Amino acid sequence: MTTKTVAVVGASGYTGRELLRLLAGHPRLRAAAAMTARPGAAPEPPAFPHEPQIEPLDLRRLRDVDGVFLCTPHGAASEIARAALAHGAKVVDLSADFRLRDREVWARTYGSPHPAPELLQSAVYGLTEHAREAVAGARLVANPGCYPTSILLPLLPLLQAGLLDPRAPIVADSKSGTSGAGKAATDRTHFGNVHENFCAYGVGNHRHVPELHQAAGTDRIVFTPHLLPTFRGMLSTIYVQPAAGVSADALRGCLAERYAGEPFVTVYRKGQPELACVLRSNHCHVAVAASGPLVVLTAAIDNLGKGASGQALQNMNLMLGLPETDGLLEGTVA
Amino acid sequence: MTTKTVAVVGASGYTGRELLRLLAGHPRLRAAAAMTARPGAAPEPPAFPHEPQIEPLDLRRLRDVDGVFLCTPHGAASEIARAALAHGAKVVDLSADFRLRDREVWARTYGSPHPAPELLQSAVYGLTEHAREAVAGARLVANPGCYPTSILLPLLPLLQAGLLDPRAPIVADSKSGTSGAGKAATDRTHFGNVHENFCAYGVGNHRHVPELHQAAGTDRIVFTPHLLPTFRGMLSTIYVQPAAGVSADALRGCLAERYAGEPFVTVYRKGQPELACVLRSNHCHVAVAASGPLVVLTAAIDNLGKGASGQALQNMNLMLGLPETDGLLEGTVA
Amino acid sequence: MTTKTVAVVGASGYTGRELLRLLAGHPRLRAAAAMTARPGAAPEPPAFPHEPQIEPLDLRRLRDVDGVFLCTPHGAASEIARAALAHGAKVVDLSADFRLRDREVWARTYGSPHPAPELLQSAVYGLTEHAREAVAGARLVANPGCYPTSILLPLLPLLQAGLLDPRAPIVADSKSGTSGAGKAATDRTHFGNVHENFCAYGVGNHRHVPELHQAAGTDRIVFTPHLLPTFRGMLSTIYVQPAAGVSADALRGCLAERYAGEPFVTVYRKGQPELACVLRSNHCHVAVAASGPLVVLTAAIDNLGKGASGQALQNMNLMLGLPETDGLLEGTVA
Amino acid sequence: MTTKTVAVVGASGYTGRELLRLLAGHPRLRAAAAMTARPGAAPEPPAFPHEPQIEPLDLRRLRDVDGVFLCTPHGAASEIARAALAHGAKVVDLSADFRLRDREVWARTYGSPHPAPELLQSAVYGLTEHAREAVAGARLVANPGCYPTSILLPLLPLLQAGLLDPRAPIVADSKSGTSGAGKAATDRTHFGNVHENFCAYGVGNHRHVPELHQAAGTDRIVFTPHLLPTFRGMLSTIYVQPAAGVSADALRGCLAERYAGEPFVTVYRKGQPELACVLRSNHCHVAVAASGPLVVLTAAIDNLGKGASGQALQNMNLMLGLPETDGLLEGTVA
Repeated sequence: MTTKTVAVVGASGYTGRELLRLLAGHPRLRAAAAMTARPGAAPEPPAFPHEPQIEPLDLRRLRDVDGVFLCTPHGAASEIARAALAHGAKVVDLSADFRLRDREVWARTYGSPHPAPELLQSAVYGLTEHAREAVAGARLVANPGCYPTSILLPLLPLLQAGLLDPRAPIVADSKSGTSGAGKAATDRTHFGNVHENFCAYGVGNHRHVPELHQAAGTDRIVFTPHLLPTFRGMLSTIYVQPAAGVSADALRGCLAERYAGEPFVTVYRKGQPELACVLRSNHCHVAVAASGPLVVLTAAIDNLGKGASGQALQNMNLMLGLPETDGLLEGTVA
Repeated sequence: MTTKTVAVVGASGYTGRELLRLLAGHPRLRAAAAMTARPGAAPEPPAFPHEPQIEPLDLRRLRDVDGVFLCTPHGAASEIARAALAHGAKVVDLSADFRLRDREVWARTYGSPHPAPELLQSAVYGLTEHAREAVAGARLVANPGCYPTSILLPLLPLLQAGLLDPRAPIVADSKSGTSGAGKAATDRTHFGNVHENFCAYGVGNHRHVPELHQAAGTDRIVFTPHLLPTFRGMLSTIYVQPAAGVSADALRGCLAERYAGEPFVTVYRKGQPELACVLRSNHCHVAVAASGPLVVLTAAIDNLGKGASGQALQNMNLMLGLPETDGLLEGTVA
Repeated sequence: MTTKTVAVVGASGYTGRELLRLLAGHPRLRAAAAMTARPGAAPEPPAFPHEPQIEPLDLRRLRDVDGVFLCTPHGAASEIARAALAHGAKVVDLSADFRLRDREVWARTYGSPHPAPELLQSAVYGLTEHAREAVAGARLVANPGCYPTSILLPLLPLLQAGLLDPRAPIVADSKSGTSGAGKAATDRTHFGNVHENFCAYGVGNHRHVPELHQAAGTDRIVFTPHLLPTFRGMLSTIYVQPAAGVSADALRGCLAERYAGEPFVTVYRKGQPELACVLRSNHCHVAVAASGPLVVLTAAIDNLGKGASGQALQNMNLMLGLPETDGLLEGTVA
Repeated sequence: MTTKTVAVVGASGYTGRELLRLLAGHPRLRAAAAMTARPGAAPEPPAFPHEPQIEPLDLRRLRDVDGVFLCTPHGAASEIARAALAHGAKVVDLSADFRLRDREVWARTYGSPHPAPELLQSAVYGLTEHAREAVAGARLVANPGCYPTSILLPLLPLLQAGLLDPRAPIVADSKSGTSGAGKAATDRTHFGNVHENFCAYGVGNHRHVPELHQAAGTDRIVFTPHLLPTFRGMLSTIYVQPAAGVSADALRGCLAERYAGEPFVTVYRKGQPELACVLRSNHCHVAVAASGPLVVLTAAIDNLGKGASGQALQNMNLMLGLPETDGLLEGTVA
């Protein structure tokens, strides 16, 4: 199998750098270009030995690559996606530009008209384990948000199997490392405000809610994100009401069966997942436990791994006809 | 007002040391004795300039003090409480020995018969803002657990006012700093297992659940504790279903009114509490926000402050006829 | 003794907030005004219950107070000091404006002419234990830098006693928590750049070097600062060459004798100081140990305590005729 | 090139697990056995997906492998090394058993007679860049300690070139992440004692001193280790007195030339290395800067990487005739 090439746009942010790290260990995919998200930006020297120099954005360099990863802010990805698709490259967009199918929901959520509405219909929502075939055939994949990934993986099979009470709310209480807040220096990311601290934010109005509701096919999910004093990692604690007569064991059995053959999703027989077990990996670890009248699902991922760059690479592997686990299984965790 | 004296038993643990710190700044209360929880234990040198030497337990020293704080493991407090009460001292027990009124529930929860069942009826559950008069008249106060304190303060007024749907489950998703796991060196408290990590534990079977259900008068509370990579602090995120026609604003109004005169409970008009705002204090900060069909209550305390030693001192102040806020309001946070 | 009043200018930064915390527990000193460093700045709501509202700078408010703490950036303190002195207030300046006696050294170090050279001669360098009488009689005290404080306290008595080889270099390897880098959100203070990280900076050219050399009376001190992944605390490890025939024990004896009566300096008989022992306090803990041909002095302080706001309050107490330890000894550490 | 096999003994400790992580990404080396350090120990389930089950020690399994990594405590490695060598396997010992050539120095340092003195002469001290040929031909390699590695890499070329004043002391002030203290739960490794803390330890008598002096060929090195509140990483700040007429630039030039072709050592032209640049890698980053009369060398490594398992793999690669950088260059950092 010959080596294929990709470009990483927005390569100097956390998800971009994580992609460069993963690509450095990939047997069949090479980062042929690493560029900033804007044309005028100064080139950045490599921070790590495995990194290439990061160049200012030059759309012409998208001509010669098989795939393009977009790690730009939302709103900025659309135009670059359009250019890359015109050159025939496959595109995985890690921003929010193509996650919502409805342009009006997008406009309400992000506060401006959608910059490339003509691409919305062809974009595939890339929660890989639930869209494998569509991803493999897609030209443009919208990589899911980190929070939705950690919630949908344990939740979707239960919803699809009709094992949950359809009238009861679903509580998704999520906790994320601060790399989710990005590389920009702000009060929120100041060490003095993160270290030995913890808080909820965006209660009742986080931008991931429309994505969650669309992907789950229900608006009963009540979602609260929190900011952990860690750099990486995400844990979602999800409270569901089983349908009448359905036990926690039945829910666990459903998930275990659904993910039996999946290389990146592990359903625990006992115990609880910790961030440490999934850091720097593309894995999602899930546990199921009864608690009074409800059942508690916990799911741990790395917000930069399965929650962003890992899943993006998993999707690109599929889109380029490479083994899905290439560059993702070995030696990546620590 | 003359100075009164107290003894701290179990003074070398985290809650004991926190009491010594608070007592060092108290205008009218003096730590006349600081002892370990066991008679044979080696004396420990003071770790900080404000600390006295910590001596091995000697029950005779309980004769000469006005009050006794018990910071021992559960099961070990009962006998010392009995001795202190016999000497006429007021007792605040920070362990779990007197939190449950029903000795059989206690035995099931802690796995052995209750060591002093004759004292159970006279013990007052010291969630101060909800038991002020009873505490003031008590000889023995059971200091609430840290998790229940952070959950009951925002929840009790709503339950008592009948503002919540009586059939809907209440989800209490709590996150605690590791000082809650104690000073003993274990795998759980190893730096390598806490730092850059996070997990749920005791899902569905934590020992604080019977205490929560008893104090709230309902067993609809579904409680999940988590371990934060911080030393101090606790945040509980609580999801409630208002009764028909009751808004989030109504819930907030109820709490604001209930706690309007309270020196240690603050109900936010907007924004979310952070651990940093309550660390090293006896404060509890509460926010209320609508989120889809539910309302989200968040409450931040210091698990060693209002969740343990701060509230214990607040209770002792009341029991000894001192101003309730003595030693708790000024200069204690940072 | 009647209560006296002070103003804190630059009250919203880390050293300002630390002063407000200490003043909240002070028996005889009250923060009558808490202001930002600039007239136009928006007022800031209190972050903690003990804090007053922080108002925009208004020089007229300096008329009515007995003392003024200046917590402004260097260069900005001079003009405010001039105004406060004109009003008859005592001034403790925590910035670098009055630490160097020589205006030309100041100009070289800070890159601009000194803004109030006429005040340089009357300013007292307030390393309290080494300038107690001068501080008590001063109108303007230059509060020492945190790094110099941690280095000079263990070093000065040895230099003054002639116990060190006068030709040998003195190595001062210092490590500071990130609060030393200030409250501004920068790449340096971003959580992602501090957490799980550590580095030296300013090697060979840190601005505290001229202050160190002036105060020590020698330019043989080689100083390297490092940035710790903690919020508070500072440890300096200092390597000295004793004069011929002088042992480590002799050095330790010299320090123990010199600081025997000092409430804030502790010289260890054995063991090594840790940050944890001095955090949130005005204490300095010092150890002395032989190591091959050299002797190693280690000194731990809180960079915001004895390294800034604690020592500033100690100095102000002296200047206003209050007991030196007021507000600094009890209940302040944790 | 065919795949070769290795066994990891003591696989459940931090250095053992790091080796398993590196081997999982190695193209030509496979972990055929992962065993505990003692025969009776219970098997441990894999903590990460890339890990094999860790079995109790069984010396017979050393027969079938090409190489053996010993990650056991000092004293325990000797007997296993003897068995492995008898089976014809190459051995890299990460413990201290074979680092000192002189059995009497070993006995004094470790408090008991050396358990395999007959092997001392044939063991090669594996600071790879300074012993490449000897390592390639060795049957038994003593992997250097983490502290000595971080000090010797910047120091040895300067000593060998005669660029340092031969009478002046050399100060090595080293700071290490807590993984260096091992996986055992102790007071020292308790989260509450590491987080927001920092201290020196073993001042004047650390066990790495004899190793340092032997490898450097001088006993003028004064070494002080410190414990950082990080999990990984090590920075050594080294103060040297150049020989008369030798500049900092000359020292930098010497190091740059010496390490010009080395894949794992980078000498900075400007700036200072940070832990973050070398974490989870086998790299050593070095800077050189003048500071008053001395020159400051700073060297950053990962204590578990170049300071232990990374260098061990680098050595094993050489011993087994594999490319030296196999499994160490790509995708290993994050």
